[in-house]
Amino acid sequence: MLSSKKKYIVNSNSGIKAQIQFADQKQEFNKRPTKIGRRSLSRSISQSSTDSYSSAASYTDSSDDETSPRDKQQKSSKGSSDFCVKNIKQAEFGRREIEIAEQEMPALMALRKRAQGEKPLAGAKIVGCTHITAQTAVLMETLGALGAQCRWAACNIYSTLNEVAAALAESGFPVFAWKGESEDDFWWCIDRCVNVEGWQPNMILDDGGDLTHWIYKKYPNMFKKIKGIVEESVTGVHRLYQLSKAGKLCVPAMNVNDSVTKQKFDNLYCCRESILDGLKRTTDMMFGGKQVVVCGYGEVGKGCCAALKAMGSIVYVTEIDPICALQACMDGFRLVKLNEVIRQVDIVITCTGNKNVVTREHLDRMKNSCIVCNMGHSNTEIDVASLRTPELTWERVRSQVDHVIWPDGKRIVLLAEGRLLNLSCSTVPTFVLSITATTQALALIELYNAPEGRYKQDVYLLPKKMDEYVASLHLPTFDAHLTELTDEQAKYLGLNKNGPFKPNYYRY
Amino acid sequence: MLSSKKKYIVNSNSGIKAQIQFADQKQEFNKRPTKIGRRSLSRSISQSSTDSYSSAASYTDSSDDETSPRDKQQKSSKGSSDFCVKNIKQAEFGRREIEIAEQEMPALMALRKRAQGEKPLAGAKIVGCTHITAQTAVLMETLGALGAQCRWAACNIYSTLNEVAAALAESGFPVFAWKGESEDDFWWCIDRCVNVEGWQPNMILDDGGDLTHWIYKKYPNMFKKIKGIVEESVTGVHRLYQLSKAGKLCVPAMNVNDSVTKQKFDNLYCCRESILDGLKRTTDMMFGGKQVVVCGYGEVGKGCCAALKAMGSIVYVTEIDPICALQACMDGFRLVKLNEVIRQVDIVITCTGNKNVVTREHLDRMKNSCIVCNMGHSNTEIDVASLRTPELTWERVRSQVDHVIWPDGKRIVLLAEGRLLNLSCSTVPTFVLSITATTQALALIELYNAPEGRYKQDVYLLPKKMDEYVASLHLPTFDAHLTELTDEQAKYLGLNKNGPFKPNYYRY
Amino acid sequence: MLSSKKKYIVNSNSGIKAQIQFADQKQEFNKRPTKIGRRSLSRSISQSSTDSYSSAASYTDSSDDETSPRDKQQKSSKGSSDFCVKNIKQAEFGRREIEIAEQEMPALMALRKRAQGEKPLAGAKIVGCTHITAQTAVLMETLGALGAQCRWAACNIYSTLNEVAAALAESGFPVFAWKGESEDDFWWCIDRCVNVEGWQPNMILDDGGDLTHWIYKKYPNMFKKIKGIVEESVTGVHRLYQLSKAGKLCVPAMNVNDSVTKQKFDNLYCCRESILDGLKRTTDMMFGGKQVVVCGYGEVGKGCCAALKAMGSIVYVTEIDPICALQACMDGFRLVKLNEVIRQVDIVITCTGNKNVVTREHLDRMKNSCIVCNMGHSNTEIDVASLRTPELTWERVRSQVDHVIWPDGKRIVLLAEGRLLNLSCSTVPTFVLSITATTQALALIELYNAPEGRYKQDVYLLPKKMDEYVASLHLPTFDAHLTELTDEQAKYLGLNKNGPFKPNYYRY
Amino acid sequence: MLSSKKKYIVNSNSGIKAQIQFADQKQEFNKRPTKIGRRSLSRSISQSSTDSYSSAASYTDSSDDETSPRDKQQKSSKGSSDFCVKNIKQAEFGRREIEIAEQEMPALMALRKRAQGEKPLAGAKIVGCTHITAQTAVLMETLGALGAQCRWAACNIYSTLNEVAAALAESGFPVFAWKGESEDDFWWCIDRCVNVEGWQPNMILDDGGDLTHWIYKKYPNMFKKIKGIVEESVTGVHRLYQLSKAGKLCVPAMNVNDSVTKQKFDNLYCCRESILDGLKRTTDMMFGGKQVVVCGYGEVGKGCCAALKAMGSIVYVTEIDPICALQACMDGFRLVKLNEVIRQVDIVITCTGNKNVVTREHLDRMKNSCIVCNMGHSNTEIDVASLRTPELTWERVRSQVDHVIWPDGKRIVLLAEGRLLNLSCSTVPTFVLSITATTQALALIELYNAPEGRYKQDVYLLPKKMDEYVASLHLPTFDAHLTELTDEQAKYLGLNKNGPFKPNYYRY
Repeated sequence: MLSSKKKYIVNSNSGIKAQIQFADQKQEFNKRPTKIGRRSLSRSISQSSTDSYSSAASYTDSSDDETSPRDKQQKSSKGSSDFCVKNIKQAEFGRREIEIAEQEMPALMALRKRAQGEKPLAGAKIVGCTHITAQTAVLMETLGALGAQCRWAACNIYSTLNEVAAALAESGFPVFAWKGESEDDFWWCIDRCVNVEGWQPNMILDDGGDLTHWIYKKYPNMFKKIKGIVEESVTGVHRLYQLSKAGKLCVPAMNVNDSVTKQKFDNLYCCRESILDGLKRTTDMMFGGKQVVVCGYGEVGKGCCAALKAMGSIVYVTEIDPICALQACMDGFRLVKLNEVIRQVDIVITCTGNKNVVTREHLDRMKNSCIVCNMGHSNTEIDVASLRTPELTWERVRSQVDHVIWPDGKRIVLLAEGRLLNLSCSTVPTFVLSITATTQALALIELYNAPEGRYKQDVYLLPKKMDEYVASLHLPTFDAHLTELTDEQAKYLGLNKNGPFKPNYYRY
Repeated sequence: MLSSKKKYIVNSNSGIKAQIQFADQKQEFNKRPTKIGRRSLSRSISQSSTDSYSSAASYTDSSDDETSPRDKQQKSSKGSSDFCVKNIKQAEFGRREIEIAEQEMPALMALRKRAQGEKPLAGAKIVGCTHITAQTAVLMETLGALGAQCRWAACNIYSTLNEVAAALAESGFPVFAWKGESEDDFWWCIDRCVNVEGWQPNMILDDGGDLTHWIYKKYPNMFKKIKGIVEESVTGVHRLYQLSKAGKLCVPAMNVNDSVTKQKFDNLYCCRESILDGLKRTTDMMFGGKQVVVCGYGEVGKGCCAALKAMGSIVYVTEIDPICALQACMDGFRLVKLNEVIRQVDIVITCTGNKNVVTREHLDRMKNSCIVCNMGHSNTEIDVASLRTPELTWERVRSQVDHVIWPDGKRIVLLAEGRLLNLSCSTVPTFVLSITATTQALALIELYNAPEGRYKQDVYLLPKKMDEYVASLHLPTFDAHLTELTDEQAKYLGLNKNGPFKPNYYRY
Repeated sequence: MLSSKKKYIVNSNSGIKAQIQFADQKQEFNKRPTKIGRRSLSRSISQSSTDSYSSAASYTDSSDDETSPRDKQQKSSKGSSDFCVKNIKQAEFGRREIEIAEQEMPALMALRKRAQGEKPLAGAKIVGCTHITAQTAVLMETLGALGAQCRWAACNIYSTLNEVAAALAESGFPVFAWKGESEDDFWWCIDRCVNVEGWQPNMILDDGGDLTHWIYKKYPNMFKKIKGIVEESVTGVHRLYQLSKAGKLCVPAMNVNDSVTKQKFDNLYCCRESILDGLKRTTDMMFGGKQVVVCGYGEVGKGCCAALKAMGSIVYVTEIDPICALQACMDGFRLVKLNEVIRQVDIVITCTGNKNVVTREHLDRMKNSCIVCNMGHSNTEIDVASLRTPELTWERVRSQVDHVIWPDGKRIVLLAEGRLLNLSCSTVPTFVLSITATTQALALIELYNAPEGRYKQDVYLLPKKMDEYVASLHLPTFDAHLTELTDEQAKYLGLNKNGPFKPNYYRY
Repeated sequence: MLSSKKKYIVNSNSGIKAQIQFADQKQEFNKRPTKIGRRSLSRSISQSSTDSYSSAASYTDSSDDETSPRDKQQKSSKGSSDFCVKNIKQAEFGRREIEIAEQEMPALMALRKRAQGEKPLAGAKIVGCTHITAQTAVLMETLGALGAQCRWAACNIYSTLNEVAAALAESGFPVFAWKGESEDDFWWCIDRCVNVEGWQPNMILDDGGDLTHWIYKKYPNMFKKIKGIVEESVTGVHRLYQLSKAGKLCVPAMNVNDSVTKQKFDNLYCCRESILDGLKRTTDMMFGGKQVVVCGYGEVGKGCCAALKAMGSIVYVTEIDPICALQACMDGFRLVKLNEVIRQVDIVITCTGNKNVVTREHLDRMKNSCIVCNMGHSNTEIDVASLRTPELTWERVRSQVDHVIWPDGKRIVLLAEGRLLNLSCSTVPTFVLSITATTQALALIELYNAPEGRYKQDVYLLPKKMDEYVASLHLPTFDAHLTELTDEQAKYLGLNKNGPFKPNYYRY
């Protein structure tokens, strides 16, 4: 069922950066399809790693072992069999990956250290559904160190690093995930996390909303004991707002996707680097002197434009929002309609979150060798489907690189088939994942410990103080020294010395 | 009464950029001193213009005429005497200034054009209290063209351009303002605006809150007919929030200070240029290779840092807020405590909105020829008072430039005595004032035309759609071409094709 | 005699930055007109200072004293009358200016210190002809400290700071210069420097070639004792090359204009800042979003483009040289012909050293309010003469700012009447002048001490080692720490540990 | 013989960027060792391509075929057997690569077009020794189109792309090269190029000097017919200068390594991009906020610094040359000694062309996870040998990435074992290779067609006009429009309208 699969790819990729809502996804949870085709690329860290130099690439993914993990009998060295992973024997390799990740996630390690006295998550029973990577493992083991019990499934059928899953299982975490799950496996794994005798979750950590959806659908009574949901992705957050509007949200939920720190790192700072990386790895092109049009001047567009300008490209911007348009002007970019420059540009980059921003008509008018790629939230921005016509020839020249050839010989260089360039052809630095994971951990702590009544059955942004705390935990990486307010200054400003330092509407 | 004077300077300058609140200003309106010492430098466009090349510098300010305007009998050529300005004969010169300003305020001119059919302010009786400059005149005449009647006073005893006031009076506006008013004059002028037979205001446009305060104190009944207050300054907005909290705000108020477009232009974009301009005009220094510490990485600090980095300075940043601190790191600035670099830097710039950020101890440790200046919201950031001690010698070397000399011969170069560098030693481009004036005009239209019930007795931010409209009116200046959503795209995004395009919490 | 006057203005301004030769100036020395119309703006530091904040602006230039200095009897406090300045009583004020300049010219002060043991210029009799400013005074007093005797005249009839000249005379330097000399005064002053009983120069320091010319014409026998000429300006250097080609150069000459350090500072680094400064001081414009065309991408153009791009302008470049053109491309600028963008740009800046780069036809096509200015080497780049036609109205709106108004109301904003913006409307930082003065001092030392035969009757560039030495003397200003080669490394690279470090053709 | 091996690696890599001379290589040609250890990485385009996405990576390098090409009997489809390549059957694949390269080398294609009428190389018999890649093939076929006969060997035993060699052989070029030659093969191939019955070269195109050396040693009489040598690499150029100094150079030689265009692209523009690319591909690190020290501020260092600064890194610079040091200051970088910052930096990058710039002592003091890499001209800059001690553990974590682990657990991340990062872990864009190839072609044309006497038995730089021509041929790529001088302007400037436009000492 191709079409639904495609939609899920849309959904799943969107974890990273859209700031706006998608009207055609406004089905409620109970209407959503439950069939196959799950989020094949969502935050596909592993995917992109495979494409590049990532150490993950060297994994010995014994693909010759064709037995389904569900059919295997496996035990950890301590005798537990409450897990389901590809191969428990890969644990050692996975452990090394986790240890490397620990070195680059100082904030979580700092949380562990501070938690030695108090256990802010003592009694917490967290069920999680996220990508299962070394970075996630550091998060899970941190939650454990803070006192929580965890059960975990994957939010993506492809993104699980089997070795990491094995290492987690080996050290006692009930993990149900492997790379290459079927649709059926996917739901089976989730179910194994929540449907346990003698254990009932009181916290949900979700990435995409599938876990939440499953509980809503199958075990609605569980919500009586659940203190809250922490959701990371745009899609999942969107679903929660839908539930809330419909009056069906029955526990507080924390939207960590829109926290300041996470947003800036996922979008502006990360994309400023990954646009260059993605283009270089796929095309080896030179940036200097190239004419580029960037569609959309949100955080992602701002990052792309700044990077390319700095490398000597001449950058044009398209926008629909006059405020962002004015920002583009003040930052030194010509604001144009796509049609005005489509014939002359060497590169077209979409970062709008919108659909059909680059149409077949645009593609027809591009010059020979024009590169087309997408940094936005989904694969809808470039109308790739319109290129699947008989008169055009597709030629795969490298991994993630297709030449689409017109009858007159003109070639368009299409990257990642219009999917997210930064996820498909670049990597997400661990530092960015550290920001996200720390935000998730703090959101869990906040929801779990909040006094009755602080949060109602609604969707909340992370309290600013928490957001500031996430940031402060990452400052030591840069040997950055924060200034403290004196008492006199705090009084003058009417602020608490420990923050929060800004009103909620502050824009950073 | 030194302390109150100082406070007023604080207040009045603050129109430009603080984003945070000042605890020690939490007196309510009826407790505030009414004595002398008024806002001597607030938005002193004229002041800075005088210091530089501005055409204002050539004004023939017949200072030999010592008669108080209050004691003069003046008539416009049409016979009106419902005004009080320095010299109605200067009208022609002022008219030329207004015409020049019109050319650089295309948004207001566009509003006039669109208003030819409808008169959205027909029936509006606006009383205003702002700086009286050529740009304000363009605003007032636009309000007139939109159907409003206006009466106007100055919000600053020094900032009135007499020629412009004369031109306004000559063309029929009841204006009560001149440069060099006394404290008594100041309140007299405001009173002449509101206390008129047969005319009662139904809208207030205020900059600093004095006009609002006066009506509250003297003519509280007037509020029965008043549909709303539009307030531009940080201080005035702060007072409104205080009133609101105290349950004493009896009409809707619009906080235009915090609208996106105005904030970005007043702070980020404007300061990015004025820091260079202010330093050059006062010191003729070379930026390349200089070590600079910028205290505060809000919008103003971001602008200063970006500009100086681009000019080849080595920039350090201090911050109290970990999120802004992390932004500084990612933008390539070493985050330090002031003490760590104070001995080595060539320039110290404050942009915090805080007090005593640069203390005497810091000043004692600076190296010879270190330049110290303030881009923040008030004159409190540098503890200038601590330099008024007998062992230090002050030497005025140029307008706005003092050498403070230590016993061992070390000199500190203090600019503008610690007041705002960008207002004292640079100019505010008309384009920035155009953004502000357009925002004010739209806020007046919105409040005046809002259906009953849309706004309650509270303080509101400008609706996002209005903010976007302000931006769109300024795009033609840059020959910028906005893209329009197709119906299909609008539906996909769940947006109206005409905006608003972003959720309220969007950070730009 | 307008044409010769114009040529002189060309010549005199050109001290700063042309890199190419002017065919129509190829008259030899003895053919050049000796009449009026002298270099009215050459390096007019004083001029620009007057326009801005410079302390020079506060000079009490007792203009009521109309007596020619040539007719006055003046004596220094030590009884000397071997000088001719405006007013010896202004010496104290001038001394203070010199002391301030000393603080910013650490390289010359370091030379003085090192010279305490040895006197590398002992026996040198230097006759100089340069602008007479505080910075020149520091140079002259340094030459004195190094053992030289000096006599000095001004190379420009307007640029002398009378107070500084007075201070020099007071401390014993035979100085013959004042602001506002006539043509006849100019040559009289030069003659007084060289035509002295019992004193004959053995070194020449010239800026523009007039002093050299005078000696060639009047006292050719003097060259028998002269060891060399140091020449700073493009024009003077050009003349020397002409003499050399014609076989008439009878002593070695040092072209200090083309030394690396001086070139980079006079052009790239200085213009990067002064373009912004000059535009701001004259127009108060905002740079963000403005469309600018920069004609010429040499060092000056590179500096202008970098600065404006950093401030958010959109910059186009025109070039005739394909190598510089390719550099512009790689630096991110669209390379266009002027015609292609002339209708759309907000600012036109010329930096070509060429003539009629901006023609009347271009001016006719510019849009309303377009700003036109020149950063190149002369006033020929914009065809200003073509604007002096009856149908156009000129309106002087500020010092250095003219509106030229077309019959249809279109206004062009012409800065400094097409003369050098950076000299007319900005200032030259003392640091840049320090580089130049140090280069001159070292060139004098080199020529004076060179063993017989090292230099022949030709024009030489400053030896690279000297150039490096100038640079090294300026590093402490930036607290910059140079690395020293180890013996092993020096051997590996085949270099002397003390330099020179690069082959002559190295491009930096 | 380790030491000689190391030197050769030095030599061979140096084709890219050193600007200075190496004292310990001053052996003359006839003293040089002829043993093993040849240029293992020189311009290893193929190498780097293999490491990354390059289409070359998909080459089916039938490594199972162990027969030496020297022992095979191969024939092209046209019956020729005057070549020696790995497998003539790979020709078709190689042809496709050449066709792709043609699209990105418009300058050579333009030369071909212009040559259709005249054949400027008619009669030329060129023997070449360069890397054999698709780009070289475009060059060779262009030389053919211009009328030349060519015979070719590889200048590096690893860099030949077998498929491309096959395609060249198939289309009739006598090519003698394959990937993985032995030392003996290397010289055998060269000999097969020159030692032919009935054919004697009259032009040499060399990259590294080995071919020239061979002819000098074996066939000195050949020089009687040779019109000139074109040499591309630093090492080869150095050898030619040695020969010239020793009076042994018997034909004119053209140093194309130091032509302006080639230098800027090989160094500044190329490294500005490849430093980011190389670091990303190997480490997936984030640049923002990282502290970096760049050793050396030549063209390469300037490129690295600019790129990293733009990405938000904090960059320190070390230099030995005070002029470059002052440039670093003015560009906004703190100039330090390596010791001052070695404990705090996250990345160390060498670009000096020197040896032992990073010593074991430095390495001992670096912090955990510090990344160390080399962008300079050889593998000598980091003292990698000093890390081969028993107490340190080496761990290969990815291709080109080693962790060197101290006893206390500290890890240093060493890239490419200290060899050139940009060649080992990045790619050289075709555009840069196009610049080089065009320069080579024009140098051959110039030397071949120069009238008797224009060039003597010396080493020459490419005439500026040719350099400008290379640049102009590459402008259309950027849709860049050059301005032409009018007759009047050309006369004014004393220039020919077609260039050259600058004096020889111009620095660009």
